[in-house]
Amino acid sequence: MTMLFKNIALVARHNSPHIGDPLRRLVTLLRHECSSVLMDADTAQEHPIADVLVVERDAIGKVADLVIVLGGDGTMLSIARIVAPYRIPLVGINQGRLGFMTDIAVDDIETTVPRILGGDFVPEERILLQAKILRGDREIHASLAFNDIVVRSGGTGTMIDFEVFIDDQFVYSQRSDGLIVTTPTGSTAYALASGGPILHPTVPAIALVPICPQTMSSRPIAVNDASAVDFMLTRGHDVRVHFDGQSHFDLHEMDRVTIKRYRNSLRILHPLGYNYYDMLRHKLHWGERLF
Amino acid sequence: MTMLFKNIALVARHNSPHIGDPLRRLVTLLRHECSSVLMDADTAQEHPIADVLVVERDAIGKVADLVIVLGGDGTMLSIARIVAPYRIPLVGINQGRLGFMTDIAVDDIETTVPRILGGDFVPEERILLQAKILRGDREIHASLAFNDIVVRSGGTGTMIDFEVFIDDQFVYSQRSDGLIVTTPTGSTAYALASGGPILHPTVPAIALVPICPQTMSSRPIAVNDASAVDFMLTRGHDVRVHFDGQSHFDLHEMDRVTIKRYRNSLRILHPLGYNYYDMLRHKLHWGERLF
Amino acid sequence: MTMLFKNIALVARHNSPHIGDPLRRLVTLLRHECSSVLMDADTAQEHPIADVLVVERDAIGKVADLVIVLGGDGTMLSIARIVAPYRIPLVGINQGRLGFMTDIAVDDIETTVPRILGGDFVPEERILLQAKILRGDREIHASLAFNDIVVRSGGTGTMIDFEVFIDDQFVYSQRSDGLIVTTPTGSTAYALASGGPILHPTVPAIALVPICPQTMSSRPIAVNDASAVDFMLTRGHDVRVHFDGQSHFDLHEMDRVTIKRYRNSLRILHPLGYNYYDMLRHKLHWGERLF
Amino acid sequence: MTMLFKNIALVARHNSPHIGDPLRRLVTLLRHECSSVLMDADTAQEHPIADVLVVERDAIGKVADLVIVLGGDGTMLSIARIVAPYRIPLVGINQGRLGFMTDIAVDDIETTVPRILGGDFVPEERILLQAKILRGDREIHASLAFNDIVVRSGGTGTMIDFEVFIDDQFVYSQRSDGLIVTTPTGSTAYALASGGPILHPTVPAIALVPICPQTMSSRPIAVNDASAVDFMLTRGHDVRVHFDGQSHFDLHEMDRVTIKRYRNSLRILHPLGYNYYDMLRHKLHWGERLF
Repeated sequence: MTMLFKNIALVARHNSPHIGDPLRRLVTLLRHECSSVLMDADTAQEHPIADVLVVERDAIGKVADLVIVLGGDGTMLSIARIVAPYRIPLVGINQGRLGFMTDIAVDDIETTVPRILGGDFVPEERILLQAKILRGDREIHASLAFNDIVVRSGGTGTMIDFEVFIDDQFVYSQRSDGLIVTTPTGSTAYALASGGPILHPTVPAIALVPICPQTMSSRPIAVNDASAVDFMLTRGHDVRVHFDGQSHFDLHEMDRVTIKRYRNSLRILHPLGYNYYDMLRHKLHWGERLF
Repeated sequence: MTMLFKNIALVARHNSPHIGDPLRRLVTLLRHECSSVLMDADTAQEHPIADVLVVERDAIGKVADLVIVLGGDGTMLSIARIVAPYRIPLVGINQGRLGFMTDIAVDDIETTVPRILGGDFVPEERILLQAKILRGDREIHASLAFNDIVVRSGGTGTMIDFEVFIDDQFVYSQRSDGLIVTTPTGSTAYALASGGPILHPTVPAIALVPICPQTMSSRPIAVNDASAVDFMLTRGHDVRVHFDGQSHFDLHEMDRVTIKRYRNSLRILHPLGYNYYDMLRHKLHWGERLF
Repeated sequence: MTMLFKNIALVARHNSPHIGDPLRRLVTLLRHECSSVLMDADTAQEHPIADVLVVERDAIGKVADLVIVLGGDGTMLSIARIVAPYRIPLVGINQGRLGFMTDIAVDDIETTVPRILGGDFVPEERILLQAKILRGDREIHASLAFNDIVVRSGGTGTMIDFEVFIDDQFVYSQRSDGLIVTTPTGSTAYALASGGPILHPTVPAIALVPICPQTMSSRPIAVNDASAVDFMLTRGHDVRVHFDGQSHFDLHEMDRVTIKRYRNSLRILHPLGYNYYDMLRHKLHWGERLF
Repeated sequence: MTMLFKNIALVARHNSPHIGDPLRRLVTLLRHECSSVLMDADTAQEHPIADVLVVERDAIGKVADLVIVLGGDGTMLSIARIVAPYRIPLVGINQGRLGFMTDIAVDDIETTVPRILGGDFVPEERILLQAKILRGDREIHASLAFNDIVVRSGGTGTMIDFEVFIDDQFVYSQRSDGLIVTTPTGSTAYALASGGPILHPTVPAIALVPICPQTMSSRPIAVNDASAVDFMLTRGHDVRVHFDGQSHFDLHEMDRVTIKRYRNSLRILHPLGYNYYDMLRHKLHWGERLF
């Protein structure tokens, strides 16, 4: 039998002491499967395990064939942006609370992970976004996002004014608390809390969801994921653009944020039997009636 | 110069006396362009014009190369379902109130229509849905829809119970006033009034929008337009499925409605300069601020 | 010890075979408490119990000092409209699923009901609405409602046009699926599913909640419960006004529905420890997080 | 004829150069009406007018019988909090864009203001809120609000966790971007943009409107304005409480914000013919249909 995944990297959530045990179980299991096991430096420092190759998190993409994430969707998000340039698939193991992406329970590690390594998995492709921030003619920042790119006012509590263009066509000027530009993956995160629609991962779309807009007829809109979304901040101090809620960059008035689908998509490997709608129904408590 | 469209059919809104004048102007113009002009029987009966070939509405698709609609989006919807099997493009002329699809003003007939006939247009492809109603093993009804397929309780005012499957995967059971299954075209119609997202016409998606659901966490969801949507009525009397709000069919308990994208899409020809977002901004009064 | 409630009427949900047992337990308990026990004719026919005085449902108000309802909120609603003219308090016992108003579990009958009869209860006043339907100058129908008065289109699926006046001031004309006029009690029922706010029972207000309005800036509005709400149907066939979703009346174009707070409020007696917010949190699953 | 208002204070929007002319017209008019005219120091510095008595803004309440505001709703808000302790009525003049509270056009100053001074006005009482911030046992800040009290996360973009109690009863714990506690006056401002209901000024209620809550079943709730609302920040850094969007105070974890209706209400004098619903319809563009 040929091995699909020779070098497997493990990434665990930070500051999560109880994760040491499942991590060690994973290492034991993977060694038994004859895979080469890597850990990123942050994980290795918190949970040192003998004879495991340690690489910097940024270098995982160059050496691993598969990344197994232990933690929650947040950990998945952070590693997704790092490995996206390398087309490496991800597997997500949660610590107790089912995640939208981390759908394998810790208790199922020994039964599920070997099957996935053996090729029994449901692959799912998910898009990422790439944002560039332009000040005048200069690109002053760039970042990927797997969930969403959010432009919001900060602590002053005042609304911001901005204009949106899609494929160089003017869409609207808006005064609001901000704007969420989301992938289908992010459509079940902050965008959903702000009134956005759920987009199935196979819908090739990017959704624009306003946050508390002043214009009462403002509505979320989904556009083709081949579209270029341009955001221009026309008025607002203390404004930031957030990438997956994990990093951010301060915007000045007249800064532009240009957003496109990233060239690579990310592959998540789910255990057999995975069903997007089962997960959604579970997470959203669908079926629980009011009256 | 070769003619792109040799046989052009005219369809006008019913019971719209003021439409006679623009209709005659169109006939004059088209004759001057050397096209063969047809009218559907209903239009011809209301607005008889000498020497115009009259065909039944259902036969338009067989003889026309282009259909010009005079009226509003409702007239556009009714003809769309009829000509969809024949891949004939549509042009929409409104009588005063800009429509989402009827975007040429009556006053601009003489300047705009010749350009479109000459090939200066912005084509836009839009999907349709095809619904089949199954009672037990039998298919008892079938219909196309360009905007939406809506299952709703009738006059009793009681909610209905139903289950939804997508690609044979169970999605949810729901108690609500009903469900809207919409194309991107229909996303700016009834679905929008019911809280659904706007889907740009190029997004290959079908959206499911619940109507007043009892489960507070119910949300609109957009799925890939290659998906098969299955609706099963599990409880409810006096329930109907509506096609574009123009025809309907009574459902019994345990009837199933299976919905897929129709094999053909519909082509709308817009005048040069057409911009979907301009139209949206105009129709939704985007930019008018509250405070 | 003086008895607060001498004559106690029992009303049970229709077609609910399992309700016979708790009903008999209640009768035994009430006899032991030396109360006179009545049953309405419908309940008595389904669940005959020897030596219980049977009265028509409409006559309960004249002879009872307290009504104990076994069933769900629906049963509570139906009896509320009947006894409202008589200022008789209600106690609600549910059969397993906590209701917004039927908050005593069947298992707690023996512990809770005696305390309530002894005066240990949390009283809660709730308003009702009174609707009159005017055709020209004539009043052609009148009804009370405890939850809501809903005007909706029926099976045709077409929207209706109407105008609303409050205290003779024009509020808006609207095209929509209909309008919900709700008490605070009804604010957690159909109105909530349609996007309305929750109104605590002590807020002296009536809320107007549009159903799928075409005007994107339409919003629910709560007005003082001393206000007179006038609804006029300006366009629409197959339109009905529903009272608590339990009875209805067909409207013609230009019919008016005038709605005011009913002169009496209804008193519900809750067990000690009752807390409106506990119930709300339980029913709405507040606290269950998405991500 | 006796004068209703002997000492009249004028307050104008800051940094609004075009307001000098209407301000002078007002002074001329008021002198002709034999009123004593005051100006607050800020206004007087920007627009010095000879022989007008200048007082500090904070002292207006002690010397004026009426305050006339020139500007927008924002100017009205700022002065409302200052004069609320003194029960002085307000009149609002806008500079071109109708405000919810500043409903007299500059062009109508000469026709409308004299009538109001003569007693021809429609008075409207509006409640204010009083917030106290408690850190441990100490009250560390207090403020009034006329529109709303908003607790929000700042620039970090992370959600906050908090608990809400009403009249010492636990209502919910919530993770969200924040919470809006609004008067009926504020119900048409930020709360409306965040999905809250409109509350007519005569509804004696306070509404709690969550901002982008993670729990999908979270809904706005209106409680009686005699209720005490307690907010406790359980988790969140960089969190602020905002008063009318005009001043703010930084919160620490475990700080409490207790909110009650302020003892005084504020009286706004509208010109004859004033109709709350006309203003609402105008501001919200009600009646403009989608399809």
